[in-house]
Amino acid sequence: MSEKRTIDVAATQMLDKAKEIGFLTTFDRAKAQEPRCTFGNTGICCRICLQGPCRILPKKPGGNRGICGAADYTIVARNTVRYIAGGASAHSDHGRHIAETLLHVAEGKLKDYQVTDTEKLMRVAKKIGIETEGRGVMEIAKDVATAALDEYGRMHEEDLTWITSNCTDSRLEVLRKTNIMPTNINLSIAQLLHQTHVGNDSDPINIIFGGLKAALCDYDGMALATDLSDILFGTGVPVVTEANLGAIKADKVNIALHGHNPLLSQIVVKAAREMEGEAKAAGAAGINLVGICCTGNEVLTREGVAIATNFATQELAILTGAMDAMVVDVQCIMPSLRSLAECYHTKIVTTMPIMKIPGSYHLAFDEHNAINSAKEIIRLAIDAYKKRDAAKVCIPDVKNTVVAGFTLESLLNIFKQINADNPIKVLTDAIEAGEIKGVALFAGCNNLKGTHDENHITIATELAKNDVFLVATGCAAQAFAKEGLLNGEGVQKYAGEGLKKFHARLNAAAKLTTELPLVFHMGSCVDNSRAQELANMMAREMGLDNRDIPYVATAPEAMSEKAVAIGSWNVALGNPVHVGVVVPTVGSSLVNDVVTKIAEDVFGGFFFWETDPVKAAARLVEILDERNWKNAMRKKAIQAKEANQ
Amino acid sequence: MSEKRTIDVAATQMLDKAKEIGFLTTFDRAKAQEPRCTFGNTGICCRICLQGPCRILPKKPGGNRGICGAADYTIVARNTVRYIAGGASAHSDHGRHIAETLLHVAEGKLKDYQVTDTEKLMRVAKKIGIETEGRGVMEIAKDVATAALDEYGRMHEEDLTWITSNCTDSRLEVLRKTNIMPTNINLSIAQLLHQTHVGNDSDPINIIFGGLKAALCDYDGMALATDLSDILFGTGVPVVTEANLGAIKADKVNIALHGHNPLLSQIVVKAAREMEGEAKAAGAAGINLVGICCTGNEVLTREGVAIATNFATQELAILTGAMDAMVVDVQCIMPSLRSLAECYHTKIVTTMPIMKIPGSYHLAFDEHNAINSAKEIIRLAIDAYKKRDAAKVCIPDVKNTVVAGFTLESLLNIFKQINADNPIKVLTDAIEAGEIKGVALFAGCNNLKGTHDENHITIATELAKNDVFLVATGCAAQAFAKEGLLNGEGVQKYAGEGLKKFHARLNAAAKLTTELPLVFHMGSCVDNSRAQELANMMAREMGLDNRDIPYVATAPEAMSEKAVAIGSWNVALGNPVHVGVVVPTVGSSLVNDVVTKIAEDVFGGFFFWETDPVKAAARLVEILDERNWKNAMRKKAIQAKEANQ
Repeated sequence: MSEKRTIDVAATQMLDKAKEIGFLTTFDRAKAQEPRCTFGNTGICCRICLQGPCRILPKKPGGNRGICGAADYTIVARNTVRYIAGGASAHSDHGRHIAETLLHVAEGKLKDYQVTDTEKLMRVAKKIGIETEGRGVMEIAKDVATAALDEYGRMHEEDLTWITSNCTDSRLEVLRKTNIMPTNINLSIAQLLHQTHVGNDSDPINIIFGGLKAALCDYDGMALATDLSDILFGTGVPVVTEANLGAIKADKVNIALHGHNPLLSQIVVKAAREMEGEAKAAGAAGINLVGICCTGNEVLTREGVAIATNFATQELAILTGAMDAMVVDVQCIMPSLRSLAECYHTKIVTTMPIMKIPGSYHLAFDEHNAINSAKEIIRLAIDAYKKRDAAKVCIPDVKNTVVAGFTLESLLNIFKQINADNPIKVLTDAIEAGEIKGVALFAGCNNLKGTHDENHITIATELAKNDVFLVATGCAAQAFAKEGLLNGEGVQKYAGEGLKKFHARLNAAAKLTTELPLVFHMGSCVDNSRAQELANMMAREMGLDNRDIPYVATAPEAMSEKAVAIGSWNVALGNPVHVGVVVPTVGSSLVNDVVTKIAEDVFGGFFFWETDPVKAAARLVEILDERNWKNAMRKKAIQAKEANQ
Repeated sequence: MSEKRTIDVAATQMLDKAKEIGFLTTFDRAKAQEPRCTFGNTGICCRICLQGPCRILPKKPGGNRGICGAADYTIVARNTVRYIAGGASAHSDHGRHIAETLLHVAEGKLKDYQVTDTEKLMRVAKKIGIETEGRGVMEIAKDVATAALDEYGRMHEEDLTWITSNCTDSRLEVLRKTNIMPTNINLSIAQLLHQTHVGNDSDPINIIFGGLKAALCDYDGMALATDLSDILFGTGVPVVTEANLGAIKADKVNIALHGHNPLLSQIVVKAAREMEGEAKAAGAAGINLVGICCTGNEVLTREGVAIATNFATQELAILTGAMDAMVVDVQCIMPSLRSLAECYHTKIVTTMPIMKIPGSYHLAFDEHNAINSAKEIIRLAIDAYKKRDAAKVCIPDVKNTVVAGFTLESLLNIFKQINADNPIKVLTDAIEAGEIKGVALFAGCNNLKGTHDENHITIATELAKNDVFLVATGCAAQAFAKEGLLNGEGVQKYAGEGLKKFHARLNAAAKLTTELPLVFHMGSCVDNSRAQELANMMAREMGLDNRDIPYVATAPEAMSEKAVAIGSWNVALGNPVHVGVVVPTVGSSLVNDVVTKIAEDVFGGFFFWETDPVKAAARLVEILDERNWKNAMRKKAIQAKEANQ
């Protein structure tokens, strides 16, 4: 490729191969869409009713408004919050599915699932106000699951439980004062669609506040998804594995676990361990599971499964010729996988009722028969393996060691080795001492409006150089995994002196068999809730509202509606949020100013757009510096006051 | 105007006036959007993630798919069902608001509302399986309201109550067999967004079935909205009033009730009656209420309030210079009203939390203080009246007599005068005798892709000529009101011989003070549930599934997402549905074939698009003829079989 489409060496090799065999990948399709339609790209195209599409055409008489009279700010605001609705629906439906499963486990209806982390169950129960004293595990689990499902269905006005039990008091006050505290996840999503129906709300501020309410539902749904997944499958601990296409093994039956929901993939991991024999009987050296997107992150965190690749390069896993089956559940699965799989022996297996691909194999996953479903899938892979054409196999010899599994609990466990009574103080002390500048969360996707993975890596290394403590989720975390930022070498290569010192102390205390990584992999995109919990702990420990803590978030390659929802609740919860692609709010200077400027006054959090990764990193550092400086000034003022008394 | 933008004489006069004062109306804005963007207009533009917009560009390498690999059929299907999600959210949220109000009435929390139609309450309670024997009205009302709210929140698998209690058994079987029976309104809407998230479902058939499930939620939400509104405010009986801009009175305080939800407007009607004195004290001859859009239809049906105009011409009501206040609630309210109102003394009053217009007066409506809210609004109107500039007043002397109020109950009451035991048999007998060909429902909006109101009127008069019994809701019904089709003269002018005879018998039996109208006005757009109940009664009486009854629906000028939802559940419930505008499914021949052809095999109902109203009417007649012919053949076969035995 003459043009730089990716910084991933394995991906580059595979893109060359795609060119060779004449398969047009997502990189080619992205090129075909250049230049983007300016109206859609900047958000000033409205398709909310059948009279349009209406585009803002200021030069035509009557063209500076939609047919109904909607101005650019109304159109942009409506389009933006409908992204949030889509994202919130995806994350929260995922959470609902997990909650339903936990309920059925508690009711004794599912033989293949159990409560794995009883300690977490107790902690979550206490957090949300469920009595645990003298009660049985299943009884408590049932109450927790019921409370989670009630977040989606209650018809009375009661603030969402996972929000009220997770957020800081000062933040809850902000959410209530601004009237964006949701009481029912599905209701808020449906009502946001109603609010943005033709001839309904045209006030961009009111629309954005409606959007933030739905974004908080996204947060709530993912927070409970994380909690309940940990209860069902265990809370991850540090694991060592590898990442990139080199993790695919020529001599094994390779199965990719792709999508977002761990309900099936966890069982596949279990079944695969039992079925090594069958794979060997078919002539393979065994079964090799690899992960793509957040299902990959889920099984990496809890089971140490290797990462094959992230969103933009998912097709390339098939191009290795050694992928025997790709089992997909929900979200971010390219429909193109099927046509590419047809050029190979690869079996694409869809499993969920709301995610099918025409022409692919659909195995309706049934939680009541989970282990058998999983075994059936593995057998499909073994059968496919037998048909694998060795001549077509071409696996890039590219991979990196990955140290992952940093659920908040496992991160705090390391801090505990230094400060057993108050582990989070290890982090906040290092910040207050100026050793590190603060925390940056990397979240979100790939977006081929830029060079694949480049924003992720550049911003992370720049921040590392500036002594920022890095945590990551989703496809961002996978970019780091592939590029060697999730291991100790990453620290040596990229960290500034302060961060190096901090890491050295952690390493000394952690006493793991391997060095801690430059970036701490916190899990899948629903696990952004873990990062927020870290932020909340920082705020509590520092005695500050979230608006004042040195914590920033960045979605360097935001792509999905979920990313819009995540970014929006981050803003509502007080976090500055960088987005590394042009977003469709720029078509209205009003809306753009609201989300990038006014938001800061109201919530402390705000968005900023910057496609240049070096500039983006500089701005993130600047924001952390500013927050630290303000905190130092505040402290000084208090000390001065105390000295005067 | 040189171009024919409307067939409404009053509107034409006002459009000339708009031109004169230099105000660009929605007609001008519609012109500015010509020609429409082909991609958006045909549905092949995808903006579901931030990588796009992606347009299907078959001539570019890689351009025949979206960046993710989504084909035209996936993109079109996703866009289409997201329209349904939007529509279902609007109708069902309206229903939820009514249900919540009834609950609060039953709990004794609202002093300004009461159970008005106890008989309907009992009927609805019985229908949905709530015990009535020996129980108090409020106790029963509470159970009915709770059952309604449970449609939005339940987390267990139980088919939606208003669907199961309204639909025919054979139709329920179809809905269950095709797996589109919903169990929770808000969940289905949220899940449909999830299903259409990037990288989720790419199977157009599966997506469409997901859409139909949400469309049935639209039906459920509107059916309960109708039932519960009747319980709260009474079930309309035949009323005589007038329609078109000529209903605005130069000597009175004119207040337009605009939007969809009757909760506030019903109270405004009540308050206005008490405040005639205040209006007179301000120098007016009294208070004159007029309706626009479905709030207008609600208060027309129950209170005989005149109709000012329908969707596309709502701005023109202000241009009369005599509109003192326009009170709006939710949906289909043009944001442009505010800037036009600024040229006059007109007060635009928004009242609902999810519907604001920047710069307009917002009065947060509170059910707990309803009558005071209503009085405050009326006082605003009286104040505005005092500032009215007589020189600017220009009310077109155009209006027609309207006979409306044909809730299903009031229609059946007329039939009862002919057949007391089995009223619906009056209709089905006339069909079986060949006197009339069947029933056509006119539903939906205005859409300025065509000439305003022309499709409505042309199709209706063509069908009348062909002896089709006509019922209507929404803006379609208002087009008929304005053009004189909602009175007895309409019958004389347009009805064929058979329909005339049928009407003559009804008139003789009804013994009303006025002749029955050509088209029976069944209410607002949520009252399409009334028309469906009529269809269900026909099916039961004729011993047929809905797919076989001579009943058709047409949305001659479909515009809103609600219209897409209504059309879709009509198809799922077995009704042929005409749409008179180009819809954004035509970009995929596959999806287009599914909804226009395959749908008939599966559901009996199907869509067809025809922008030429004469051709559309001919096709609707053809469909009725075909269904009648098949039924006659079926009957003959049964008779022959019986004769042979």
